[in-house]
Amino acid sequence: MDNPILAEVTRGHTVESRHRGSALVIDADGAVVFSAGDVDRPVFPRSAVKALQALPLFESGAADRYGLTEPEIALAVSSHSGEPLHAQTSLAMLAKAGRDAGCLECGAHWPMNDVAARAIARSGGEPSALNNNCSGKHAGFVCLACGLDEDPAGYVKAGHAVQQAVRGALEEVTGAAHSTDRMGTDGCSIPTYAVPLKALALGFARFGTGHGFAPQRAKAAARIRKAAAAHPFMVAGTGRFDTRAMELLRERIFIKTGAEGVYCGALPELGYGIALKCDDGAGRAAEVVMADLIARFLPMDEAQQLAFAPLRESVMKNWNGIEVGRVRAARV
Amino acid sequence: MDNPILAEVTRGHTVESRHRGSALVIDADGAVVFSAGDVDRPVFPRSAVKALQALPLFESGAADRYGLTEPEIALAVSSHSGEPLHAQTSLAMLAKAGRDAGCLECGAHWPMNDVAARAIARSGGEPSALNNNCSGKHAGFVCLACGLDEDPAGYVKAGHAVQQAVRGALEEVTGAAHSTDRMGTDGCSIPTYAVPLKALALGFARFGTGHGFAPQRAKAAARIRKAAAAHPFMVAGTGRFDTRAMELLRERIFIKTGAEGVYCGALPELGYGIALKCDDGAGRAAEVVMADLIARFLPMDEAQQLAFAPLRESVMKNWNGIEVGRVRAARV
Repeated sequence: MDNPILAEVTRGHTVESRHRGSALVIDADGAVVFSAGDVDRPVFPRSAVKALQALPLFESGAADRYGLTEPEIALAVSSHSGEPLHAQTSLAMLAKAGRDAGCLECGAHWPMNDVAARAIARSGGEPSALNNNCSGKHAGFVCLACGLDEDPAGYVKAGHAVQQAVRGALEEVTGAAHSTDRMGTDGCSIPTYAVPLKALALGFARFGTGHGFAPQRAKAAARIRKAAAAHPFMVAGTGRFDTRAMELLRERIFIKTGAEGVYCGALPELGYGIALKCDDGAGRAAEVVMADLIARFLPMDEAQQLAFAPLRESVMKNWNGIEVGRVRAARV
Repeated sequence: MDNPILAEVTRGHTVESRHRGSALVIDADGAVVFSAGDVDRPVFPRSAVKALQALPLFESGAADRYGLTEPEIALAVSSHSGEPLHAQTSLAMLAKAGRDAGCLECGAHWPMNDVAARAIARSGGEPSALNNNCSGKHAGFVCLACGLDEDPAGYVKAGHAVQQAVRGALEEVTGAAHSTDRMGTDGCSIPTYAVPLKALALGFARFGTGHGFAPQRAKAAARIRKAAAAHPFMVAGTGRFDTRAMELLRERIFIKTGAEGVYCGALPELGYGIALKCDDGAGRAAEVVMADLIARFLPMDEAQQLAFAPLRESVMKNWNGIEVGRVRAARV
């Protein structure tokens, strides 16, 4: 079965490019609210499940032991843009566990945010692992290791206690086996497991409601959602989709992008979980499709609709600032 | 009709993403050598037709009047990375027509090449229009305007003598009407016209052979091919696909990337033209598909095959330098 076209890119009056994919909205009992394309095919969720990967940090007591703040919790589930506040907050998290940036095993890269990258270049500096978009998640992993009284060294490896705990949480929350034959290595060197989109949507319906979770896990999920809603900048960064959407809708949504066109999220007041994957890995398409699904189901007043509209249809401008086209969801 | 999957992206042992599209290889008489997907749908060729857009620069006599060198000719058909040599060469072209960077109407952007961008930031500078990936083409447009004794001001507009000449050449070479109802604005502000992929492939079969061209146009096409083959760095830049492929195969190929997953090219010794478009606009897929088509038809000895192999299957590494996946052509 070919997946349907979920998003279109226009130029002038012509559709220039088309993005196919699959998307699912489901409640915590598994009742399907919306479905498009093949939702059973295994998909690497990549960074879209960082909030689920962070659950052991709370359930183990490590987050409380080190007194992680709300901005730090938001950063622990982020793919941030490497802006100064992100890097500083990662470092602060590590310091609470008595560690420093030397413990991070995610690798260094230039900040995703161009202004931040150029500021480092202007100062004659080089980026560190703190600027890696995953440094908050990794600082959380280091805190988890220390909280478990484990040596953090090698915490990215599938056999380390940290990744075992993460994998266990992912399996329980999504209900899907995370098998080594469907394992890949993520950009930040931790294992990522391909699971059906349906399992991801179900996991996020549970994450958004706590339905079916033990009390401790439900409390952890609520803390993460609250932290992200209060500090959306920490989850992504300046101008980023996750940040803009959560700044507008706060605790009414929890959303998280992943590489290769994946998006996961929850609409807690409706009890819905959302998971989508653009076949071709395009983030620009995943964003407008997520926006379209949110707008389709979440009641908004006129002012909210107006403020949310630019997220649903993204305007492409050229180097002279002239609008040349748009990225928009295709009605499936 | 759904276009077939032309390229796959793997992670571990799993296919993570898939790119669909259409591709055509055709000879200058219009005989189809290879065809996949819908080759009749109008496609914006974007920068993939810069070599055809440059023909009037030669046919008008402007290139000779200003004594453009081979590196300058290669730059006139480039989407360069904004490295210092690219910017300097654009400026030199403008100077030959008695103009400077103030004439460029493409807009400024930071160099595509990260090292070049950071060097500008380190020096406390800002990028200029010379760093725009289209500045070579635009310098050529300014030379064309001056060669026609026209005021270059407004040369990006559809009604200017420069764009009229460019559109005329595109229509003649491709045999396709370039109509205003299929017009869009390109990233560098000039008009781009959506035409069938088939017309683009035919245009490049003619461009690669001169077949069906007046002698002056055939000579211009040969000059451009020779210049690109001698100076592949000028056509793109450090590490870029066009540069690497033409460094290896020189005059045996002429290829040019365009935005939104378009690629055009010619295999002169076989008389073939190539045009392809990835539906989703992905350049990473367009590259491996172009490499696959070249390797499928162009005889190479063992050493050439070995050197060309990394272009056919591109290795993705993560921030720790670990191979995590590959981008490869799918056999259609």
